[in-house]
Amino acid sequence: MKILKVKTKSPYYITISNGLLEQIPEEIARKFEFGKIALITDARVKELYGEALLKALKKAGLRVELFYFPEGENSKRIETVIYLAKEMLKNSFDRKDLIVALGGGVVGDVAGFLASIYLRGIPFIQIPTTLLAQVDSSIGGKTGVDLPEGKNLIGTFYQPKAVYIDTDVLRSLPHEEIKNGLAEVVKYGCILKRRLFSYLYKRAPFLFNVEARDYEYIIYQSCLTKATIVQKDEKETGIRRVLNFGHTIGHALESISGYRVPHGLAVAVGMAVEAKLSELLKVNEEPLFDPLVQLLSKLELPFRISQLNLDFEPKQLLSIIAKDKKVWKGKLTIVLLRRIGKFCLYENPPENKILEALKQSL
Amino acid sequence: MKILKVKTKSPYYITISNGLLEQIPEEIARKFEFGKIALITDARVKELYGEALLKALKKAGLRVELFYFPEGENSKRIETVIYLAKEMLKNSFDRKDLIVALGGGVVGDVAGFLASIYLRGIPFIQIPTTLLAQVDSSIGGKTGVDLPEGKNLIGTFYQPKAVYIDTDVLRSLPHEEIKNGLAEVVKYGCILKRRLFSYLYKRAPFLFNVEARDYEYIIYQSCLTKATIVQKDEKETGIRRVLNFGHTIGHALESISGYRVPHGLAVAVGMAVEAKLSELLKVNEEPLFDPLVQLLSKLELPFRISQLNLDFEPKQLLSIIAKDKKVWKGKLTIVLLRRIGKFCLYENPPENKILEALKQSL
Repeated sequence: MKILKVKTKSPYYITISNGLLEQIPEEIARKFEFGKIALITDARVKELYGEALLKALKKAGLRVELFYFPEGENSKRIETVIYLAKEMLKNSFDRKDLIVALGGGVVGDVAGFLASIYLRGIPFIQIPTTLLAQVDSSIGGKTGVDLPEGKNLIGTFYQPKAVYIDTDVLRSLPHEEIKNGLAEVVKYGCILKRRLFSYLYKRAPFLFNVEARDYEYIIYQSCLTKATIVQKDEKETGIRRVLNFGHTIGHALESISGYRVPHGLAVAVGMAVEAKLSELLKVNEEPLFDPLVQLLSKLELPFRISQLNLDFEPKQLLSIIAKDKKVWKGKLTIVLLRRIGKFCLYENPPENKILEALKQSL
Repeated sequence: MKILKVKTKSPYYITISNGLLEQIPEEIARKFEFGKIALITDARVKELYGEALLKALKKAGLRVELFYFPEGENSKRIETVIYLAKEMLKNSFDRKDLIVALGGGVVGDVAGFLASIYLRGIPFIQIPTTLLAQVDSSIGGKTGVDLPEGKNLIGTFYQPKAVYIDTDVLRSLPHEEIKNGLAEVVKYGCILKRRLFSYLYKRAPFLFNVEARDYEYIIYQSCLTKATIVQKDEKETGIRRVLNFGHTIGHALESISGYRVPHGLAVAVGMAVEAKLSELLKVNEEPLFDPLVQLLSKLELPFRISQLNLDFEPKQLLSIIAKDKKVWKGKLTIVLLRRIGKFCLYENPPENKILEALKQSL
C-alpha cells in the first residue's frame, strides 16, 4: 500500500493498493464524518463494482443510495449533472452528506462537478476505475462537462476529500484502456521522471499482465508527479502547463478525429511529434525521438500520425493549434524536452518547424 | 465615497458612492488586467443603465460585449447560465477575460455562477442595482440558480474581484424595492449594529427620498456587518448563520406563499416573530418586539403575518421550518436577540413556543 498527501488548499490523501475496494467502507466510516452517501457511477461500472460496493457500504452500517447514468463521453453533459442533482434532492441529500464517485474519467468529472455545485458544494471522494483516471483525471481537482461547442467548457476546480485507487480493478480493463492510461504515464516519465521512463522500458513486456506490484509503483510515481505540479499551481496559471507535453499536438489530433481517437493514443503520437520538434529546435541535450518511439512501440502505442487513420493536411493541424486554450495574448507556449525526464517551455515555436516535425511523423 | 476591504481568501474591495457608474470604466481599466468584458444584465437594467455603461466602457477603449436575459426570478435557472456560456463561447471569451454583472440579485447570482463555472472559472465584478443586492446578495460570494425543486439548489461560493455600489441607481427603484432592501438593513441593526438601528429609526421619515448621504451610510454599515461575518465563515458552517435572523420564519412564509411575497417583507415579519420568540423564551435583556415593530412600521414594512395575505395554519409553518436547510442532525438552530444589536443562537426552541410566537403575530 502506498499513501500520498496532496497539499492543495484543502489537503487530501491518495491511497494506492490492491484489494482496496473491500476496505473502503470501513475506511470511509472511520475517517469521515457525514450523514449518508450518494454513490455515483455509470451503467457499466455499476455492474462490475457498483452493486458490490453498495452492498459492502450498507453492510458497514452506512446509509447509501446508488445513482448511475449511461456510460460514455456522451453522458458528460450538464443534463446528466442536473438529473443527478434532482435524484439527490428527491432523496434529501444535504451539505453534510458525501458523494462517492466510482468510475472512469467521465464519472469523476461529472460527479466532481456535481459535488462542487450541489447546494453550493458538498464533500466528495474519488474511486477511479480506469488507469487513465487513476494516473491523471482523479488528481488535480478539475471537474466539468462538455458543451456541443467543445470539451470541458463548463466546470470547476474542486478537490476531493480522498482518492482510493485499487489496482485490482485494472484487471477488468480492456487492453486498449491500459494502453490509453500508459500513454500518460510515459508523459510523466518524459517531463520529470527519467527513472519511471526506464521502469516502463524494462517492464514493458509484462505490463499487460497487470501485476499489482508494477501498477502500485507506476500509479504512485504518476500521482506523485502530478500532485507535485498541481499543488504548486492549483488553477493552471503557470507550471501546470508542463502536464501538456504531447497534448498540444495530441489535442489537435483528437479534435481532427472528432474525438474518435482515444486520448492516450493521440497523446502518444503528440509526444513523438513534440520530441521530434525538440530535436528540430535543438533544445535537446540527448536523443529524444528514438528512445521515446522505442518505448511507445513496446507499449503498443502509436507514434506516427498515419497509425491513427486520420485524413488531413498538416496545415489544418496548425490552425487548430493556434486556437488552443494555451495560446494567450498571441503567444503559444509548447512543452518540449531537454532530456528524457527534463522538460522545457518554448514560446512561439516557428510554424515551419512544427510543420517539419509533423511531416517527419506522418 | 466609502471603500471597504472584504478579507476573504482572495480579498476584494467594495466601493460605495453616488455617481460611481460613470467612473467605473476608468476604474476597471486602471485596476484590472484582462482581455475583454462580458457585460451581463437583464432586459430591464439594460434599458436603464446597461446600454449607457456599454457605451462608456467602449469609449474608455475597452473591448466589451453585452449579453442579457429576461428580467425576473424565472430567469434564475441553469438554462440561462448555459445560454450565456454559449454566447460567450461564440464571442471567444477565455479565462483571461472578465464578467461584469450589472443588476439585482438574479443578475448577480446568475452571472456569478456563470463566472465560477465558465472554463472552470473566470474573474467577475459586481455592480448591484437594487438596495437588496447592494446590502446583501453582492457580498459573500454566494452564487446560484433555482431548480423546480427549490431555490438556490445549484451554485458555488465564488468571490468577485470587486463590487461597485452606486447609490444613485436607487432613485430609479420602485418604492417597494427600497422597502425590500431596508428589511435586510434592519436585520443588520438587530443582530450587531444598534447604532444602525437607531439611525434608521431617526431617519425613517426621509429614507424614501433616497438621499445619497443616508444610503452611503446605510449601505456601508450593512456591507461592513455582512463582510465581517462572511470573512470569518466563508462557506457558511458556523457564525454566518447569524445572518439568518428573521429568515427561519421568513423563508417559511416565502415558501408558503409560493414565493409571491417579496423576500424583504417575509423577512420583516420573520424578524418580528423571532423577536417575539426571544421574549417568550426569555433570552432578552430588554424589550425587543415593540421597538422592532415601531421601526418596521415607520419603514412601511409588515410585522404581522396577516399583512402578507396568506392562507395557512401555523402548524403548517412548523413542518416547513423542520425541513429547513439549517436543521442538521435533528437540531434546529434559530437566531434570537438578547438586545437590539446583540444576537444569540438558540438550539431546538420548543414547538409550542414557536406556535405561540406565531399566534401572537397573526
